[in-house]
Amino acid sequence: MSQTPDSAVRTYIEQHCSAFLDDLAEWLRIPSVSAQPDHAPDVQRSADWLAAKLLETGFPTVEVWPTPGAPAVFAHWPAEDPHAPTVLVYGHHDVQPAAREDGWDSEPFAPEVRDGRLYARGAADDKGQVFFHTLGVRAHLAATGRTAPAVHLKLLIEGEEESGSPHFRALVESRADRLAADAVVVSDTGMWSEDTPTVCTGMRGLAECEIRLYGPDQDIHSGSFGGAVPNPATAAARLVAALHDEHARVAVPGFYDGVVELTDRERELFAELPFDEARWLRTAKSYAAHGEAGHTTLERVWARPTAEVNGIGGGYQGPGSKTIIPASAMVKLSFRLVAGQDPDHIEKAVRAWVDEQVPDGIRHETVFAAATRPCLTPLDHPALRSVARAMGRAFGTPVLFTREGGSGPAADLQEVLGAPVLFLGISVPSDGWHAPNEKVELDLLFKGVETSAYLWGDLAEHWREAS
Amino acid sequence: MSQTPDSAVRTYIEQHCSAFLDDLAEWLRIPSVSAQPDHAPDVQRSADWLAAKLLETGFPTVEVWPTPGAPAVFAHWPAEDPHAPTVLVYGHHDVQPAAREDGWDSEPFAPEVRDGRLYARGAADDKGQVFFHTLGVRAHLAATGRTAPAVHLKLLIEGEEESGSPHFRALVESRADRLAADAVVVSDTGMWSEDTPTVCTGMRGLAECEIRLYGPDQDIHSGSFGGAVPNPATAAARLVAALHDEHARVAVPGFYDGVVELTDRERELFAELPFDEARWLRTAKSYAAHGEAGHTTLERVWARPTAEVNGIGGGYQGPGSKTIIPASAMVKLSFRLVAGQDPDHIEKAVRAWVDEQVPDGIRHETVFAAATRPCLTPLDHPALRSVARAMGRAFGTPVLFTREGGSGPAADLQEVLGAPVLFLGISVPSDGWHAPNEKVELDLLFKGVETSAYLWGDLAEHWREAS
Ligand SMILES: [Zn+2]
Ligand SMILES: [Zn+2]
Repeated sequence: MSQTPDSAVRTYIEQHCSAFLDDLAEWLRIPSVSAQPDHAPDVQRSADWLAAKLLETGFPTVEVWPTPGAPAVFAHWPAEDPHAPTVLVYGHHDVQPAAREDGWDSEPFAPEVRDGRLYARGAADDKGQVFFHTLGVRAHLAATGRTAPAVHLKLLIEGEEESGSPHFRALVESRADRLAADAVVVSDTGMWSEDTPTVCTGMRGLAECEIRLYGPDQDIHSGSFGGAVPNPATAAARLVAALHDEHARVAVPGFYDGVVELTDRERELFAELPFDEARWLRTAKSYAAHGEAGHTTLERVWARPTAEVNGIGGGYQGPGSKTIIPASAMVKLSFRLVAGQDPDHIEKAVRAWVDEQVPDGIRHETVFAAATRPCLTPLDHPALRSVARAMGRAFGTPVLFTREGGSGPAADLQEVLGAPVLFLGISVPSDGWHAPNEKVELDLLFKGVETSAYLWGDLAEHWREAS
Repeated sequence: MSQTPDSAVRTYIEQHCSAFLDDLAEWLRIPSVSAQPDHAPDVQRSADWLAAKLLETGFPTVEVWPTPGAPAVFAHWPAEDPHAPTVLVYGHHDVQPAAREDGWDSEPFAPEVRDGRLYARGAADDKGQVFFHTLGVRAHLAATGRTAPAVHLKLLIEGEEESGSPHFRALVESRADRLAADAVVVSDTGMWSEDTPTVCTGMRGLAECEIRLYGPDQDIHSGSFGGAVPNPATAAARLVAALHDEHARVAVPGFYDGVVELTDRERELFAELPFDEARWLRTAKSYAAHGEAGHTTLERVWARPTAEVNGIGGGYQGPGSKTIIPASAMVKLSFRLVAGQDPDHIEKAVRAWVDEQVPDGIRHETVFAAATRPCLTPLDHPALRSVARAMGRAFGTPVLFTREGGSGPAADLQEVLGAPVLFLGISVPSDGWHAPNEKVELDLLFKGVETSAYLWGDLAEHWREAS
């Protein structure tokens, strides 16, 4: 009696799950904290460990790529069919800092399984989710009788994600030929919940600026001059107050130019998610939902562009009072961008708006940081449909769709490589990313293995059909 | 040939000016810096020195009044006529810190006369202006043949003005019976310029508050939550932006209740002052004049109530960026008040306005500091007319009128003693209060002596007529 491909995958995973967990635990014991300089040797050790493991997995090409910071690991396993699509998996091997005294119930770098969960720093973010691809590709080969994956499979696992990926863009640009891919699969995200597997279809982009406003040449006395000269703190406040209109829409002219609106289908699918606003507010540690009129909370955080003030300051902020008109004030703004918005256009629009808003007698300058572009893969994209099908097979249920409100280095891959970005993540909100007692649900981890095992064959088959 | 009263005063001053300057220089050598604890013995020495000098001047009652901080000096010289009005002169014997290396051309506590100016810390603010009353009262007696002043003359010279007069209100309240007066003469202000003697008719009051706004329980990620929850920094900015309407009038409902408007005559007199706005802007170190529509710059700083933001802060203010929605933000506001405005009413109005402005989901608290009431003496008040006449006789020219935009402890005297406050100051803007190379113009200092010498007789005569 021959097995179905799915049961073959499951059998292979069952046979290898114990060794897989032992290996993962070994990796999790390496405290690869990229933000702490004294852990630099550990981050290097983590890269070397992963490289060795990928060779062992079967990748014929494995390289550790140095950067001016922490090293990344690159691996390549070509398909037999030269016309097969090329897929690049992105993840990271560095982790957030963690110390037992922060509130961990066990040592953060001594992995421990309790109640079907593996507790360790990096268990979900992101070592667990990187690692499920190693068993996934082996199961794919075993179940299909192949000696090479159905796609040209590449991995790029960076070592500085938790430090803001300062050298990632340059690395991708300098290695663009080696990284060339038809699609990018990011395994550094999550899904809705254990009961509701979801595929993320995009991330918001990010433009950030600091606006500095200068009034008097020094702090001046508000008794002598108050009411008769412009106050830069007032100008700063008025800028922030003018950012949004009465519908909580961003009021910078041109801000919405090109925005790809949600389709009715996407809105319907979002609405199918079992969203509990009171519970979401607790997660947000906030006391009210408030945002752009005409959109739900999920639409606001996932699919609508925003403007937020991240910092504002000017004048005297110490205890008590000081009767001054301050010499200067500043505002830090960030704009989350969605597909169709161009960071360069946003910068121009914001600069023009600031110039127009700032009153006579206040000098100003606006400094923009490097922007991150938004990414979005349409629901009908064949690669996205492959991810959704592979996940649906693993979970035995149709998947729904989410987006990510944040912004990430995946956007650099999309932009430099010109490839659509797909997200395959099995983490759930309770996994405690960046928090004490980070964990991964073992049954979800193996659903990740299984999804990975189904994905490459599905992609190879349907990509070809679509093109 | 008998002298006129004025030439008798002048003769007396000429005969005693040298000894007067020697005495003043001796006082100025005492570094009575109230803000620096290690100078506490000097502040005490300054009080003792002044007390001895006032006894020597002829005051039968002289007392050094301790406070929990620095001591004040009280003196009392009753008139022969028990029905004469009682006048209390206010000034201070403490000084601002000063060090040669701050940019002084001579030692700040080694008084030096150069080009008709006496340079020393405290020369103008306020020892010189306190001290001119000692020679003034002697000249008054000499020229009129009296053995006691024409008014019941009291002096209260505090020792903590440069530290914010923290114990002054309590001192005045606890000694209210000793300080009882029909009028208060403050000699701690200035006049328009050497060529334009002026009398100040009032000071603005001051109400100050800090508004604290709380959003999420901790800083939250602007990617995950941006655009969907209220941001306390936005709320803070919107409060500040809503403080003024498009005419730069304060938009807090009820703020202008009771405001005593400038009379046409006062506006005419202000307009007679040789005001150069470009020069004023240089003094304000500012790049534009901006304020309440329908009022000149001088009206704005002297006679109109204002709202200013003295400080604003929230979220990340360091270098670079941080993609957060901050947990909290705060705003420090100060309101300058004019005659007719009641600080308690202002506090109520601001609290109601804040409650109404702050959006759902943002918690807030507002903390008010102790307020200072405004004071204003009408142009036709008999005591004010006496000051103007005395000054006009000393300067040989009619005087004009100003006000002070700032707020001072004189308001406590007005409030506790229920007496109108008059201002007799001969300092000019170039005197460098609180700055290096503070000085007093010697010819103006003796005009101060002369004004003081004329004032008590004029007051006694015309006060009686008016009542
Ligand atoms: Zn991550
Ligand atoms: Zn003073």
